[in-house]
Amino acid sequence: MNPTPTDRVLAAAAAEAAPSWAASPPDLRAHALTTVAKALEEEREALVAAADAETRLGPARLNGELTRTTFQLGLFAAEARAGEHYDVRIDRADPAWPTGPRPELRRYRTALGPVLVFAASNFPFAFSVAGGDTASAWAAGCPVIVKAHPGHPELSRLTAELIDHALARAGAPEGVFALIEGEEQGIEALRHPALRAAAFTGSQRGGLTLARIAAERPEPIPFYGELGSVNPVVVTEEAARVRAAELASGYVGSLTLGAGQFCTNPGLLFVPAEDHGLVDAIASALRGVEAAPMLGDRFVQGYLDGARRLAALPGVRTLVRPADDETPAPRLLATDLKSFVAAGEEAAEECFGPLGLVVTYRQLGELAEVLSRMPGQLTASVHAEPAEATQLTSLAGVLADRSGRVLWNQWPTGVSVTHAMQHGGPFPATTAPAGTSVGTAALERFTRPVAYQGAPEELLPEPLRDDNPWGVPQRVRAS
Amino acid sequence: MNPTPTDRVLAAAAAEAAPSWAASPPDLRAHALTTVAKALEEEREALVAAADAETRLGPARLNGELTRTTFQLGLFAAEARAGEHYDVRIDRADPAWPTGPRPELRRYRTALGPVLVFAASNFPFAFSVAGGDTASAWAAGCPVIVKAHPGHPELSRLTAELIDHALARAGAPEGVFALIEGEEQGIEALRHPALRAAAFTGSQRGGLTLARIAAERPEPIPFYGELGSVNPVVVTEEAARVRAAELASGYVGSLTLGAGQFCTNPGLLFVPAEDHGLVDAIASALRGVEAAPMLGDRFVQGYLDGARRLAALPGVRTLVRPADDETPAPRLLATDLKSFVAAGEEAAEECFGPLGLVVTYRQLGELAEVLSRMPGQLTASVHAEPAEATQLTSLAGVLADRSGRVLWNQWPTGVSVTHAMQHGGPFPATTAPAGTSVGTAALERFTRPVAYQGAPEELLPEPLRDDNPWGVPQRVRAS
Repeated sequence: MNPTPTDRVLAAAAAEAAPSWAASPPDLRAHALTTVAKALEEEREALVAAADAETRLGPARLNGELTRTTFQLGLFAAEARAGEHYDVRIDRADPAWPTGPRPELRRYRTALGPVLVFAASNFPFAFSVAGGDTASAWAAGCPVIVKAHPGHPELSRLTAELIDHALARAGAPEGVFALIEGEEQGIEALRHPALRAAAFTGSQRGGLTLARIAAERPEPIPFYGELGSVNPVVVTEEAARVRAAELASGYVGSLTLGAGQFCTNPGLLFVPAEDHGLVDAIASALRGVEAAPMLGDRFVQGYLDGARRLAALPGVRTLVRPADDETPAPRLLATDLKSFVAAGEEAAEECFGPLGLVVTYRQLGELAEVLSRMPGQLTASVHAEPAEATQLTSLAGVLADRSGRVLWNQWPTGVSVTHAMQHGGPFPATTAPAGTSVGTAALERFTRPVAYQGAPEELLPEPLRDDNPWGVPQRVRAS
Repeated sequence: MNPTPTDRVLAAAAAEAAPSWAASPPDLRAHALTTVAKALEEEREALVAAADAETRLGPARLNGELTRTTFQLGLFAAEARAGEHYDVRIDRADPAWPTGPRPELRRYRTALGPVLVFAASNFPFAFSVAGGDTASAWAAGCPVIVKAHPGHPELSRLTAELIDHALARAGAPEGVFALIEGEEQGIEALRHPALRAAAFTGSQRGGLTLARIAAERPEPIPFYGELGSVNPVVVTEEAARVRAAELASGYVGSLTLGAGQFCTNPGLLFVPAEDHGLVDAIASALRGVEAAPMLGDRFVQGYLDGARRLAALPGVRTLVRPADDETPAPRLLATDLKSFVAAGEEAAEECFGPLGLVVTYRQLGELAEVLSRMPGQLTASVHAEPAEATQLTSLAGVLADRSGRVLWNQWPTGVSVTHAMQHGGPFPATTAPAGTSVGTAALERFTRPVAYQGAPEELLPEPLRDDNPWGVPQRVRAS
C-alpha cells in the first residue's frame, strides 16, 4: 500500500525538518514549546468549548486538563533546556587502558527522527494533539505527526492551527508538526519509511494492531503503546477494620471520576473475606452516583458489553446495577479469589468505564501468588495500616514486578506530571515497558545513542564539544 | 510447544532467583562478577587451549580476548557499585504543584528479570558464556541463562563450570546462571514465560527469526539482537592524495583482522574516482595476505557463497581473488556508485569474512544521498584531511543517522570496552537500536522503571530510601 500524496508530503516535510530540529539549540525547542503553551492559554475559552462539545467531559475537568497540558509543555521545555536527556559521556583517549589504547569516544543520545503520535479519546488535551507524547518528542528534537482522534476532530483542528502559528512565530523549522485524520491515513503514515517511532494511548485491540504494523515494516520502529489496565487495589483486613467508610468513599471517587474513563481506573478491588462492611459501604455509595456522560455512544456500548460479559462469568455476582440497564451508571460486581482465578485472563480485562469487580481473598499469601500471574498493569495499590508495612514486603514486590507504579494508601487516578512519575507497565499495559508516557522521562523514548570516535570539533554535535556551547551536563572520564 | 523438563527447571530456578538477585546489594553483584573474572584468569591456559581447539582463532588473539572479557566483568562490577544505572529520581510531595498537590514519588530502574543470552561464534569469550551480555545482565541484577554457541561447546561447558563454582563461592543465589545447549532448547527457553529479555549476537537470518519468536510470545519481551553490518568507510580524494599507502595498509589490516570475522568488519569502502593509486595499493597489499583459518567449515562456505554472489552482481569486477578459489583468502571487488545503487540492498549485505567491496564515487554530495538510504549500520567511518572537516558536516550527519558509531580517521574493528562506547545501530544492524551491547551502557537494556507513590520506608527498595544505605546517586527534587 502506498502512502497517499498528502501523507507522503507531510512525512517528507517531517524528514526534511528532522536534522535541523534535532540539532537545534535546546533554547529554541524550549521557546517553541512555551510559545505553543501560551497560544493554547490565549484560546482557552474556545478550546474548552470545542472540547466540551465533542467529548461531554464538562468545562471544569477540561479547564483542569488544559492547565495540565500547558504546564506539561513548560515542563518539557525546561527539560530540553536542562539537557540531561543527551546523556553525554566523554571518554578521553587513554593509552594505558587495560585492553589496549582507548580511543577518544563521545556518546550522546540524539533525536530519533519523525514521530507519529496517535491521539487518545479520553484526554482531548493532555493525551491528544498538544499532549505529552507530542511535547516529549518535540523536546527530544523530533518532528511530530499527530493522527487526530475521531472523537474530537474540530478540537484537533483548532489545536493544530494554534500550534502551526505558534511554531512559525517561535522560529521552528517547517515540518516540525502536522495533523492527519482518518484510520487509513494513520496506518499509511505508520508504514512510511521516514517515520522513526510511534506513540499511542488507547485500547488494547487497536494498540496491538498498530504495534504489529510497526514491527512488520521493512525497518521496524519502536511502538510506545499505552494500552490501559485494570489497576488492582488490595485492601488489608486491618485497613478495612480501621477505616472502611473512608476507603469506600475513596474507592468510589476514584472509580467514577470522569465516568471511569481513565487508564488508571481501579477496576479490580481485592478485599479480605472479613471486610468489616467495606463492600456494603462501597455498594451503597455507588448506588448514589448517577450516570455521567461518556465520551460517545461507542464508549457507552463498549462499557455495557464489558460489564455484561464480566457479570456473566461463573461465580460473579452483581452487587450494584442501575434500574435502567442501558445507562452508563456505575456497576459493582463481586466474586471470590477462586472463581477469579478460574475465569482466567477474561476476569482481568479492562472494562472502560465505572465498573468495579470486587474479589474476596482469604490470605494475603494466596492473593500475592495470584497477583504474580496477572497481566502487566500500569498501577497497583495497597491500602493498609502503617504498622503492617513490614509484613507486606513480599506483596509489594509482586506488585512492583507486575506494574509500573505502586501506590500506598492512595488511589491511582490523577497521574501527576513530574520528574519521577512512571506511567507505563509490563505488557500488555504498555507495549514497550522501558518507557513512560507521563513525566519528564517520557522524552527518553524518542532518543537513540550515537558515539563519535576521534572526531574533530567541527564535526561534533554541540552537546559533545569540549567548549560545550549549550552548557549541557557532560560526564567526562580521563581514564 | 512445551519447554522440556530441563528448560523448565532452569527457567524456574532463574525466576526463583530473580527477586533476591535484583534486590541484592551492588557489592554482592560486583563481588560475584569479579570472582568469576578471577576464576577465568586462574584457568586462562586451559580456557585458551579449549577455545583454540574449537575456534582456530589462535592463542594470541584468544589471550587478548580473555583479557578483554575479565576486564569487562570488572568494569561492570564497578558500574554495579556506582549505582548510576538505578537512575533514581525522588520527587517530594509538593502541595503547591501547579496541576494540583504533587504526591511523593520515587522512581528507579529495577532489574527486568531472567535474561536469555544467545552466545556468538566469533568471540568465544567476549560475546559468549561469560561475555558482555551476561556481565551486563548480572550487573543489572538479572539471572542469566546462556544458550551455548554450537561452535565451541567444550569451551562453553568449561566456562560454565568455572562460573558455577565462582558464583557459589561469592554467595550469589542459586539460579543466577545456567547453560543450555541446542537450537531447540534455545527456542524453548525464549518462549518460557519466566524469561523477560533476550540478547543475541549473530547473523541477520538467525537473529530475525528469534526476534519474531520473542515478539510473538503471549507476553512479548525485548530482544536485543546485534546482527552485524557492512560498516561503510568513506575516503575523500584529499586523504587519498596525501596518504594512499597508509590508508591501504590500514584498510587491509582492518579487513583481514581475525579472518574478517568481526561484525565491525569494513566490508564497504567508498573511494573517489580519482583515487591516487589507493585501490591498486589495497589490491596489491591484499594479494599478500594468505588465507587465515575461519571459525569452521560452515563459515568458509558462507564466505565463499557470499563473495560469489557479490561478484556476480551486474557491474561488479573482481580485483583480488586467490588462485585457489575454494580457500577463504581475502577478496576484493569493485564497482561504481551507479551500479551499487542499481544492485539495491543485495550489494550492502554482510559477507562474513575478509571481503571488501570498493565503490567509486564522483561527488561527496551524491554519495551522501546514497548513504542516507543505506540499511542501519553498527559503524560508519570517514578518512579525510583535517582541513576538510568543515565541508563534511552533512556527510557526518548522514553517517550518524544511519549508524551507531561514527569514526574519523580510524578503523572500525577493535571495539573498546568503555563508558562512552556505542555498539548498536539502526535496524537491521541492531533489532533494538536504543541499546548497546558493548560498554557500560549495555546494562540499561536489562532494566525497567518502577515508581513508588507515598510508600513507607519499609516497603521501598534500598536505592529509593532516604537513608540511602547503598549510597547510590539520587536526584531529589523538593519542588
